[in-house]
Amino acid sequence: MTKRILVTNDDGVLAPGLLALAIEMRNLGEVTILAPDRNWSGGGHVKTLDRALRVREFRLEDGSQAFASDGAPSDCVSLALLGYFKEKFDLVVSGINVGANLGHDVTYSGTVTAAMEAVIAGVPGVALSLEIPEGTIQPVDYTASAYAARIAVENVLAHGLPEETLLNVNIPFLKKEELKGFRVTRQGLRVYHSRLDERIDPRNRPYYWIGGDAPTGVPESGTDVGALSEGYISVSPLQLDLTAYRALSDVSTWEWK
Amino acid sequence: MTKRILVTNDDGVLAPGLLALAIEMRNLGEVTILAPDRNWSGGGHVKTLDRALRVREFRLEDGSQAFASDGAPSDCVSLALLGYFKEKFDLVVSGINVGANLGHDVTYSGTVTAAMEAVIAGVPGVALSLEIPEGTIQPVDYTASAYAARIAVENVLAHGLPEETLLNVNIPFLKKEELKGFRVTRQGLRVYHSRLDERIDPRNRPYYWIGGDAPTGVPESGTDVGALSEGYISVSPLQLDLTAYRALSDVSTWEWK
Repeated sequence: MTKRILVTNDDGVLAPGLLALAIEMRNLGEVTILAPDRNWSGGGHVKTLDRALRVREFRLEDGSQAFASDGAPSDCVSLALLGYFKEKFDLVVSGINVGANLGHDVTYSGTVTAAMEAVIAGVPGVALSLEIPEGTIQPVDYTASAYAARIAVENVLAHGLPEETLLNVNIPFLKKEELKGFRVTRQGLRVYHSRLDERIDPRNRPYYWIGGDAPTGVPESGTDVGALSEGYISVSPLQLDLTAYRALSDVSTWEWK
Repeated sequence: MTKRILVTNDDGVLAPGLLALAIEMRNLGEVTILAPDRNWSGGGHVKTLDRALRVREFRLEDGSQAFASDGAPSDCVSLALLGYFKEKFDLVVSGINVGANLGHDVTYSGTVTAAMEAVIAGVPGVALSLEIPEGTIQPVDYTASAYAARIAVENVLAHGLPEETLLNVNIPFLKKEELKGFRVTRQGLRVYHSRLDERIDPRNRPYYWIGGDAPTGVPESGTDVGALSEGYISVSPLQLDLTAYRALSDVSTWEWK
């Protein structure tokens, strides 16, 4: 039976990475596109309940039909899975994001939280992100990323995903023939280098940028950060249960009077 | 040495739950308040990088000095920990939220993601939420919640928190003398009952509400949902590592060609 695949992202409906993903996914099933009408990077796992959402139809560069909402990526997934379209979906894929989503990025990332939203609704979700060096001019070549997306999604369609689990796929900035292959990894450690920049506006009032250098990471073997640094595509299964199981017994011994 | 405690929330700086928490925390240390200037419920783990943030000074009902920013709860934590204030903080507490944050709520919740932001920055974080029945008129009595906050924070100050771990505390809607005590729990399962409501505006264009009934949960023993349903305060240690460790070996056997 034909698989029905929802494609979304957090860079916005007109991002070249979304089109590259949609085109690749058409080899695997019937594709519907519903994505934000603007960039939502760093926007987190949003559930918009205090305002209504709009949906507009777009044409992408290749003539593809696409829909865009004024909500977050996770709202787009909600709209699609709650019935904006008549069809039921077998899979939600999100990306291809401009920039890797590694380590602690995953709870900030609109790309990853879109896949979370799918999993919460009972539909497998796959997030795809391409590591892109700062200052790179768009559009980049998405050939390697589209290949990674196809392999990951073929696997998910063949094997399914465990309950409450999504796949977070990150692709290094390499040509397809330079890729060393895939690594199944755990979430590594991001190192943020944020700094507060205070500036003064023309009316003499201060304002504050969360500035500083781009985040780096600890390239430990076995982690998402490590895999990318070695030229591998990283595939991390992530779960929605955040319980710190190893801390449970210790915290239980505290004095809860 | 006096402990320095940052108090924030996601209901906004003027929420009564924030003031109740701040007053209680003054028994444990020196309190600074920096919270959003509006309600951010369901706003997710935000990192605002595409615009600058403003900070304004407020006076709370009891005369307390407070600061409010136009960023998300996690942005408020960033501002405070990156140096908006001269002092370093020993702890970030977030709440007391209007409404429980259980199960899958944790990645949507501004209350919980504020504590996440603290932990990412290396400072222990505690999120506090009060289960409030729909239709309850504010302000409610925060006595029981303030008591729960004090016990939880005393424990964190005494024992510390494991790395990459925050505490998610939920309080049932009971009088203090009706509380059965504390339970250290794992994250349970929320059941969302969302439904898409299509409406037509005066200009004949459709718009969409994410509607439906309020979420419920599976009141399984040992979980946050279960503890609240039995009249206990729930204390869940949550971690920032989302790796689905039990899925790693299975996913590794897939065909990664």
